[in-house]
Amino acid sequence: MPSRELVIGFDADDTLWHNETIFEYVHTRYRDMLSRYHDAATVNRTLFATEMRNLETYGYGVKGFMLSAIETAIELSNGKISADEIRQLLELGRAMLEHPVDLLDGVAATVATLAATHRLILITKGDLRDQERKLAKSGLAEHFRHVEILSEKNEHAYAVILRRHAIAPENFLMVGNSLKSDIAPVLTLGGSAVHVPYPLTWAHEHVDELPPAEGRFFELKSIREVPAILASL
Amino acid sequence: MPSRELVIGFDADDTLWHNETIFEYVHTRYRDMLSRYHDAATVNRTLFATEMRNLETYGYGVKGFMLSAIETAIELSNGKISADEIRQLLELGRAMLEHPVDLLDGVAATVATLAATHRLILITKGDLRDQERKLAKSGLAEHFRHVEILSEKNEHAYAVILRRHAIAPENFLMVGNSLKSDIAPVLTLGGSAVHVPYPLTWAHEHVDELPPAEGRFFELKSIREVPAILASL
Repeated sequence: MPSRELVIGFDADDTLWHNETIFEYVHTRYRDMLSRYHDAATVNRTLFATEMRNLETYGYGVKGFMLSAIETAIELSNGKISADEIRQLLELGRAMLEHPVDLLDGVAATVATLAATHRLILITKGDLRDQERKLAKSGLAEHFRHVEILSEKNEHAYAVILRRHAIAPENFLMVGNSLKSDIAPVLTLGGSAVHVPYPLTWAHEHVDELPPAEGRFFELKSIREVPAILASL
Repeated sequence: MPSRELVIGFDADDTLWHNETIFEYVHTRYRDMLSRYHDAATVNRTLFATEMRNLETYGYGVKGFMLSAIETAIELSNGKISADEIRQLLELGRAMLEHPVDLLDGVAATVATLAATHRLILITKGDLRDQERKLAKSGLAEHFRHVEILSEKNEHAYAVILRRHAIAPENFLMVGNSLKSDIAPVLTLGGSAVHVPYPLTWAHEHVDELPPAEGRFFELKSIREVPAILASL
């Protein structure tokens, strides 16, 4: 297979730019705010439970996270949280949505290199406008032939994308930090996948095992190593 | 031009199913909640100003509306709004996101009829997951060849869609209730547009004038009249 036929999909958050670090900072501020009501572990556990309960309704992204954080703060404080503290939570959410886009090491050069020889597709989930904003700010937009912002990244969603762009699974390689959203569904469909772990992983993105994928799954330390993988395919 | 070459775009909220009526109900409950602080006109004006200020950051949709409604309630009550009242606002938002999808009169039959002879595209804006949910619940999903959920419906966004699906503007007809989002940009691009007004219009969707579009703009009372328009094109 000539390598120019290979289409490469890239996840965005924590694959191209930092994201979970911003959430982690907000979580710390959030735990501080609620520390007079509950210990950190209880705050974490309750917030995560609220997010999971609301996921079907809110979907992924900062806005749903903020609504869940406000709901949890009211619950954990037994309604004692002040309007001013909720205003501070809204400010934290706005700061997340207006945060500068901080590319991961090696991303700018690697994406530019790969775009010269391959069709690249950005495949991400979250709030529509927030993801578009980050792509625009990233300086990477010109390198992606297509941008797919999804409400869920599962096998069905990838199958729809491959069909839409007339890509055979064996000609598709996905690069991402989440085994659950970027790797497992693509391997199941018969595609290839490169896992580049990020130091932090949201609990929801954990996965117990990957499907069998002899010769189609790669684990790399840095996105810089992707071109070398392509040469070996 | 044989009519089968015409591609028809449909807006969703207030064109296929009721939406602004749900917002209107929530606005009424919201004004009631804040009535001990301010009169209805002040509440309306302040909430709208907050929404406009946040639009670039939050985008369209229920989640951004709820965050703006909470922010406005804190502001208008001078921080006196209780956590329990904010919890009630969150419940109102969740009810909006879980509301049954109520098709407008004539939509089911008209969309099914047109889908038999034309390629139909759903073109809407708002929260990704919420719009997908409504389409799934509407029973109309099978009739749409493509679904485009956008962060903004302006000339640029329509141009991207037409290019993506290889549709010449003169072969495109858009049907919708918003002169600003559904009609004006399509007419500017050289397409045709059918305006089917909804009894309520969000202030943000008002437009002062339409571009010149001799023979390409139609104003109908009901979506049922769209097939007759096609016959005349």
